[in-house]
Amino acid sequence: METTEPEANVTRIMLAVNESSIKGYPHASISSRGAFEWTIQKIVRSNTSGFKLLFLHVQAPHEDGFEDMDGIYAFPEDFKTMKHRDQTRGLHLLEYFVTRCHEIGVACEAWVKEGDPKEVICRQAKRMRPDLLVVGNRGLGPFQRVIAGTVSEFCVKHAECPVVSIKRSPGETPRDPVDD
Amino acid sequence: METTEPEANVTRIMLAVNESSIKGYPHASISSRGAFEWTIQKIVRSNTSGFKLLFLHVQAPHEDGFEDMDGIYAFPEDFKTMKHRDQTRGLHLLEYFVTRCHEIGVACEAWVKEGDPKEVICRQAKRMRPDLLVVGNRGLGPFQRVIAGTVSEFCVKHAECPVVSIKRSPGETPRDPVDD
Repeated sequence: METTEPEANVTRIMLAVNESSIKGYPHASISSRGAFEWTIQKIVRSNTSGFKLLFLHVQAPHEDGFEDMDGIYAFPEDFKTMKHRDQTRGLHLLEYFVTRCHEIGVACEAWVKEGDPKEVICRQAKRMRPDLLVVGNRGLGPFQRVIAGTVSEFCVKHAECPVVSIKRSPGETPRDPVDD
Repeated sequence: METTEPEANVTRIMLAVNESSIKGYPHASISSRGAFEWTIQKIVRSNTSGFKLLFLHVQAPHEDGFEDMDGIYAFPEDFKTMKHRDQTRGLHLLEYFVTRCHEIGVACEAWVKEGDPKEVICRQAKRMRPDLLVVGNRGLGPFQRVIAGTVSEFCVKHAECPVVSIKRSPGETPRDPVDD
């Protein structure tokens, strides 16, 4: 994508995005979509050539393969297929954001990584040195946070770059606020 | 100041600014200047008509008048003079930022308020509903934070709008990092 300003001079915003816990892949979570819309509407605005968005999706590895218990895994290749399918799902999630950026006319790049999301996001932020990291936030209460964990709080505390955490609006919150 | 977009549609960024603990009024602290420069260079960029900056300076009230012990306070009017002088100092601090905005061509407003800075900042953010609150951060370690307190951590946790905390670069940190 062409930009009117040299790459080194654009503002690079990293967005950590994940899949919907309600609809599953390839749908983006409510808070990821909210964080993206906030970035476009409030920060990028009409200045599409001044920004580049870096989308990062982190997949937690299957610890016990629970999600795939219906399948039969007899050979090492079967597990490779599983891993490949997961990565493909992650790519389809990113496709949503990359397509939106293309429509809007803002430059972007996207990655799928595997690992503990909060740690991988901070590690990638350290490596890529974005000017700002934007993370969605379900806006959970203290009790729900203990159960669900919050990636955003960890990133606000540990990422080496400026971080902004975008809460879901009350109108977007599902009946069970842990859902996203 | 004229804007090409209607006021309701600009991105409103609140910046909490304070005076230098080294040079005193009217000089801005290192972290306030850093937060301002980050906002201009990384967010506003060339899109000056798309943003409005709201500067807020909060003065903690004199609890015991220590700073004014050299003066003679015999009449109630003397204390009024003191308070008036403080407000004037606060205005001169804001003058720096307002002048910079005027030079750059970005719309702004500025306020001086009195009270506990972290609480007043959150209260004003609730009242004014900015799209983003930017606060400077000295980047203190855990031990220094206990002594010096951090307004930025409180705002990140309690403000109802998105908040970004901008750390001083290591090169800008004075010999005593509690200084600013």
